[in-house]
Amino acid sequence: MTSRRDTVAKPSERGGLSRRRFLTAASTSVAGATVAGSVLADSLADVPARAPGALLGGHSERSQYVQLSRIPEAAPGLRNVDPGNAINSKTPLNKLVGIITPSDLHYERSHSGVPDLDPARHRLLIEGSVQKPLVLTVDDLKAMSSVSRIHFIECTGNGWENWKKADPTLTVQNTHGLISTNEWTGVPLRFLIELVGKHRSSNWMLAEGGDGAGVDRSIPLTDEIMDDAIVAYGQNGEPLRPAHGFPIRLIMPGFEGNLHIKWLRRLKFGDQPWMTRWETARYTQLLADGKARQFQLRMETNSVITSPSGMMQISAGYNCITGLAWSGHGKIAKVEVTTDAGKTWKEAQLNHPVLPKAQARFQMDWEWDGKPTKIVSRSTDERGNVQPDRQSFIDQVGTNALFHYNAQQTWSIDTAGRVRNDLA
Amino acid sequence: MTSRRDTVAKPSERGGLSRRRFLTAASTSVAGATVAGSVLADSLADVPARAPGALLGGHSERSQYVQLSRIPEAAPGLRNVDPGNAINSKTPLNKLVGIITPSDLHYERSHSGVPDLDPARHRLLIEGSVQKPLVLTVDDLKAMSSVSRIHFIECTGNGWENWKKADPTLTVQNTHGLISTNEWTGVPLRFLIELVGKHRSSNWMLAEGGDGAGVDRSIPLTDEIMDDAIVAYGQNGEPLRPAHGFPIRLIMPGFEGNLHIKWLRRLKFGDQPWMTRWETARYTQLLADGKARQFQLRMETNSVITSPSGMMQISAGYNCITGLAWSGHGKIAKVEVTTDAGKTWKEAQLNHPVLPKAQARFQMDWEWDGKPTKIVSRSTDERGNVQPDRQSFIDQVGTNALFHYNAQQTWSIDTAGRVRNDLA
Repeated sequence: MTSRRDTVAKPSERGGLSRRRFLTAASTSVAGATVAGSVLADSLADVPARAPGALLGGHSERSQYVQLSRIPEAAPGLRNVDPGNAINSKTPLNKLVGIITPSDLHYERSHSGVPDLDPARHRLLIEGSVQKPLVLTVDDLKAMSSVSRIHFIECTGNGWENWKKADPTLTVQNTHGLISTNEWTGVPLRFLIELVGKHRSSNWMLAEGGDGAGVDRSIPLTDEIMDDAIVAYGQNGEPLRPAHGFPIRLIMPGFEGNLHIKWLRRLKFGDQPWMTRWETARYTQLLADGKARQFQLRMETNSVITSPSGMMQISAGYNCITGLAWSGHGKIAKVEVTTDAGKTWKEAQLNHPVLPKAQARFQMDWEWDGKPTKIVSRSTDERGNVQPDRQSFIDQVGTNALFHYNAQQTWSIDTAGRVRNDLA
Repeated sequence: MTSRRDTVAKPSERGGLSRRRFLTAASTSVAGATVAGSVLADSLADVPARAPGALLGGHSERSQYVQLSRIPEAAPGLRNVDPGNAINSKTPLNKLVGIITPSDLHYERSHSGVPDLDPARHRLLIEGSVQKPLVLTVDDLKAMSSVSRIHFIECTGNGWENWKKADPTLTVQNTHGLISTNEWTGVPLRFLIELVGKHRSSNWMLAEGGDGAGVDRSIPLTDEIMDDAIVAYGQNGEPLRPAHGFPIRLIMPGFEGNLHIKWLRRLKFGDQPWMTRWETARYTQLLADGKARQFQLRMETNSVITSPSGMMQISAGYNCITGLAWSGHGKIAKVEVTTDAGKTWKEAQLNHPVLPKAQARFQMDWEWDGKPTKIVSRSTDERGNVQPDRQSFIDQVGTNALFHYNAQQTWSIDTAGRVRNDLA
């Protein structure tokens, strides 16, 4: 849907790129290998001499110069807590590029810690309103025909940090780090449904996890869900990691993270929802009028600028704005960015391929004039859903709720180039 | 190019799937949650009780039950050597799923070990036949507009194990483990070329690495290469790992691995190749007539069945055949599989999306009758290139050469279900 050259800006459009040093180097008109005495040579004087490297091994570890880590949190506003109190751990979106999240940095949200289940002893029970209930081993599932899909998973609580107030010290890891995108491999749910012979009248499915909390959710069996859902055993090419559901996890593309049941041990079919405590108490949405909305399952269109973003520092002149956009409805159609606090909007470039129900990377060239301003992104998905501004969102939903916050994210920039979390 | 449901076999086509235990369970016609006394309950008796799990942390590590590792090799046939002698380390294709290779398992091939360069001190010199030579820091590159692409990298020596003889103990990790697929993020080469103002007459580029061996290669600047090549700093969302070129690497989609210069420190433009020792001595192709072919750069259409594959054991009845196909020419158009030693071929299913110059996952349902046979895959790319059988390949290239082996891979299966590496 986008051309091959969609993300490459022409140098002629990039005056701001030519930093002072670039201009100085360019003015020397040195050509060929002889750079002695030139600015180029000075620039290279500090480059270490070449030397033999470390031995080859069984794994390629990260560089000693690269520090990448999630942030465990106890609750909104309680960061870097004692691990015993952590209920989630957030992806460092500010330090990542592209759309794939490294498996060890995929966000975590657990209700009873992270079990490391023995795959040889684990079973998946498929039962209820079916002709032939089955108990499957992990090897049974791995022996079946599979699919691999690149999809995001987003915690329904992602963004709640900014619902009521804006802590100016938050980074994008704090505000939006409960979303990640991986390649998931496993057996299509529809195949398992046909295998057990689900009764035609049965249009609800209970999915239950093997963790201590036994998280279980009722899932309506729409055509879309039966087409998309996967019982996955693979993540970015390798087996799932324990924090992400090893040995098997339900993948529900486009729907809230808690439906992607980890450590999956049971699928049960019936003709109505089971009203588990996760859907009567935990994951309901308290509206402005005091009523609670149940089964708001789909994640809406959303986006965030990941650079420049909270607690970063920029300089006047050229800055490349980049970020991520996603929608539970399908593909992202466009992302617009304002660099003047909403007065004007310009369409950003989308990296191809843009995949359905996956994060999409956008970017835009920007020449900052050094004056205080605010930058915001706004996504539109292929169904025409537009990410709302914060006030419109609150007018609709109120401020009692905790989930499905998808309002536009504002970063303010002061004269010193300090980028800070802001509300509008 | 393939439909959404392309990889999902219907249960009705999958009689072989119903293992004895499935059939037994199905015959009990137990429905609902009450499974006491049934086969289902027996099957679940061994499932451990649920319990609280480990604490959440900064990273999600692999399960204690998952053993994944590359195999360092000294030369063809010298496996699991002392790390000091290793020249490459191969991806465990037999244990991976989907198309993404985990970053720590991407294959390695190094000529002077693995340096871990300080990104703050590293520089990229761009010089030669240009208007404005430049020295760029890693931060300069990261500040530019970027692209992210999913591409394979394949060592030109991949497959050489089977050129002259077939060691029956080889796994697919041994025979084909010098290929991996990652998402690469960086600056398009064309942008840098326009930035320095390459002279129009200059149609060759020297790319030089910062490793001890200083690997350098001359690259012809075709439109295709200028469209596709990337100076990359990102791999599967995170910074490159040292074994894969940290802090920057040239990505040359579709071309032999040694052109993807790691630890990139210089790009130089000129009007003819530099005839470095890597192109006069090391990476030339000795043909049957004793002449050597230079600059055979593109990786040809190729494929391999990864399961069942060498040293695996299968049972009569249903088996899902799966594997990987790729081509340096673009997208894979189709993969055919024979399960009767070449008498008949059947088109396999391709997982979508099929990306250009990336590995594609294929699979095919197969009912094995328990008789000895041979299974082979054969890929065709979008340009119509067909992967040759081994004899045709040798008739063309001879047996003096070491590189660009892309003949069809045969796995033989004996009456005991043992899968072994075979020549044809």
